[in-house]
Amino acid sequence: MPPDQHAAMPGPVELFADLYELRMARAYLELGMHDEAVFSLFVRRLPARRNFLLACGTDVLFELLERLSFGPESLDYLRSLGEFPSGFLDWLAGFRFSGEVRAVAEGTPLFAEEPIVEVVAPIAEAQILETLALNQVGLQTLLASKAARVIAAAAGRPVVDFGSRRAQGLDAAVAGARAFHIAGVAATSNLLAGARWGIPVAGTMAHSFVQAFPSEADAFRAFMRFYPETILLVDTYDTLAGVTRVVELADALGADFRVRGVRLDSGDLDGLARAARSILDAGGLQHVQIFASGGLDEGKVAALIGAGAPIDAFGVGTDLSVSADAPALDMAYKLTRYAGRARMKLSEGKRILPEPKQVYRRLTDGVATGDLIALADEPAQDGQPLLHAAMRRGRRLAAPAQLSDIRHEAAARVATLPRPIRALEVADPPYPVAISPALAQCESETRSRLTVAS
Amino acid sequence: MPPDQHAAMPGPVELFADLYELRMARAYLELGMHDEAVFSLFVRRLPARRNFLLACGTDVLFELLERLSFGPESLDYLRSLGEFPSGFLDWLAGFRFSGEVRAVAEGTPLFAEEPIVEVVAPIAEAQILETLALNQVGLQTLLASKAARVIAAAAGRPVVDFGSRRAQGLDAAVAGARAFHIAGVAATSNLLAGARWGIPVAGTMAHSFVQAFPSEADAFRAFMRFYPETILLVDTYDTLAGVTRVVELADALGADFRVRGVRLDSGDLDGLARAARSILDAGGLQHVQIFASGGLDEGKVAALIGAGAPIDAFGVGTDLSVSADAPALDMAYKLTRYAGRARMKLSEGKRILPEPKQVYRRLTDGVATGDLIALADEPAQDGQPLLHAAMRRGRRLAAPAQLSDIRHEAAARVATLPRPIRALEVADPPYPVAISPALAQCESETRSRLTVAS
Repeated sequence: MPPDQHAAMPGPVELFADLYELRMARAYLELGMHDEAVFSLFVRRLPARRNFLLACGTDVLFELLERLSFGPESLDYLRSLGEFPSGFLDWLAGFRFSGEVRAVAEGTPLFAEEPIVEVVAPIAEAQILETLALNQVGLQTLLASKAARVIAAAAGRPVVDFGSRRAQGLDAAVAGARAFHIAGVAATSNLLAGARWGIPVAGTMAHSFVQAFPSEADAFRAFMRFYPETILLVDTYDTLAGVTRVVELADALGADFRVRGVRLDSGDLDGLARAARSILDAGGLQHVQIFASGGLDEGKVAALIGAGAPIDAFGVGTDLSVSADAPALDMAYKLTRYAGRARMKLSEGKRILPEPKQVYRRLTDGVATGDLIALADEPAQDGQPLLHAAMRRGRRLAAPAQLSDIRHEAAARVATLPRPIRALEVADPPYPVAISPALAQCESETRSRLTVAS
Repeated sequence: MPPDQHAAMPGPVELFADLYELRMARAYLELGMHDEAVFSLFVRRLPARRNFLLACGTDVLFELLERLSFGPESLDYLRSLGEFPSGFLDWLAGFRFSGEVRAVAEGTPLFAEEPIVEVVAPIAEAQILETLALNQVGLQTLLASKAARVIAAAAGRPVVDFGSRRAQGLDAAVAGARAFHIAGVAATSNLLAGARWGIPVAGTMAHSFVQAFPSEADAFRAFMRFYPETILLVDTYDTLAGVTRVVELADALGADFRVRGVRLDSGDLDGLARAARSILDAGGLQHVQIFASGGLDEGKVAALIGAGAPIDAFGVGTDLSVSADAPALDMAYKLTRYAGRARMKLSEGKRILPEPKQVYRRLTDGVATGDLIALADEPAQDGQPLLHAAMRRGRRLAAPAQLSDIRHEAAARVATLPRPIRALEVADPPYPVAISPALAQCESETRSRLTVAS
């Protein structure tokens, strides 16, 4: 599929910017401010019910940055605003991102204040990326971090993404399916996500199909004709009567009965799953699985599994697709260095750590025991450095990783987190993240300098 | 801007479907089930803190339906799944939506169980639209309904959409800006939304701009050179010191000082706005406005205004952009009639009213006093009918309305709601919605028939 033809790359994405970014860029250029800036993209605070984030979406951002240019229609629109001089529009017409990017690998667990991406470029260039970078990395990190909780709750049982209908738009559904898959979700219902990202697609049947036939049994028989190994949706009229009908069909069809499972989509899923299991087992259908969906989140999945409900797989939609308990991240893209000097702001409750940084993760016997945020140019610290060069002169340094590899790596990295951090409950104490003495000193000195100067 | 070139129309949107929809469509076609189906798109229950919904996004859906076709790459992908016979792929290759659509006007306040859209088409056609219709109408209705609350809270003061960076993806930001504008938001920061929908764009300056200069005063002077009528962001280092600097600049510049306002983006906005107002007034800058942003939602806006904070306009981002307190709607797309017979399902807690419907709104002295959901083919009831023919034989019956007209109409329609329904607090009692005796009888008869048959 050509790169233009998917939900995450909608036409003149170069206009996906806030007006103020172009206003500032124009001012920088006319003032001759071409010095190198470093912007850091990070999350200020974790949402209340997150012990960690799963970094995601950077590869999509890199692709966007490589391709970013201002086409004639975009320039016409900007000209129509009547405030941008032709010199600036010419600069935009020739724009290609020329900077460097450092980033953590997708699928890396991360914590507050740790940079996910650092952009190093002339300040006007770096500034105009702000909204695009926040939106795209924010979306996938938000959704991957949520999905990691659902995967933890499912304790090894497959989870399928049913959320496209409730996702906040096309991009959210398709990029979300990618983020979910990286976090461990097995498959998606969304064909566009399947086509774009090679994610396995899955689906059963809708209530409308059952409703369209004179009886549920007629609908089941009709569907099985085309999809003999399907999962049958049994709750359109009466869930347990639906399960009984499946047993009757198995009796009638004998060896031709190859149905893989039944889906419960409403009601008391625990009680219905137990009753359905009994009916299926009594009918000799021990191999027919039970698939549950309908209003699930990580808490309900964990409760069902904890209670011993005989559910083999979960379809999760709404709550996952919008990260319902925490539908946004407090993510920022902030200037930390310009023209060779550390930069920060002092606004109440909105700390920015100055300067380019590196994050080191210490592992003991394969378990992460703490992170250290240090200056990027400090001597290497104890632990694995998490930020790596990703783009130089506006081009990616390597081909994008395969989604399956990112997914595999993500699982391995999450597995290194201490058990309380991987749990659904809020970890107390949280995962330890320290700041290096040199970074702390730099922050303090920068603060003093700015307090005097401002 | 060509219709392909925007965030809401990302390439092969025909693949924005769940796999099960194509599976069902293929079965319908091979079974010779070509009869007409009626699907109803509605919200089952309002979110906890919504007294009404604002219907939105239908015009975008109609545009998608007019254009929907399966291109060669989409067909190649579907073929690659290995389950669809060539006859079905040929049917998809020739697919154009041929059905009828009835819908309420965008910007109409609506309540639970009231159809927003009804699709009438051969069942396979109507079925494959399910995910796309839910996603697109769901997104804009969700966001317009949230924005209506923020607008109510702002009590006439302008609200600007700053949410693109935190919106869940590109589509959510651009379609969201449209929905917000319809609901009364004055402008958006997002240039793509401005280009695509003609929405006024607005912007101030970022902290990074202030940080890039040796001092805040230098930054203000530099920015004012290019944008003399700008709004200056004063909280990068110390909010009230920043305001004082604005007064000093006014003194120094005299008649050349044309700054329109200051923006507060952190801290205690009420206290800071009062102190800023005093400083500005004492400096003779009574005409310089105060613009507040930073973590606002409708509750905080209402509290600031209720407390008398001297704030002239609000920038609202995250909470609005994701409808944070209710990030999804319980929206469904359900079969209500097929082959001339009423259809419904009986699943616990998930009622569907059968048959095509009409909604009548009674107004007394310009105030809406209650809605009646009736069968579409009942004799006309008392009140204004809300559903109108929108598409026939797959084409729109009229050109899309102008956004400004939709916006104007929306304000007029919301104004007809009783005051408690327009308020932020949960209305008790809720707005009255009744079901006509004929519809109730049809539901009861259909239930009896299905209970026996199933």
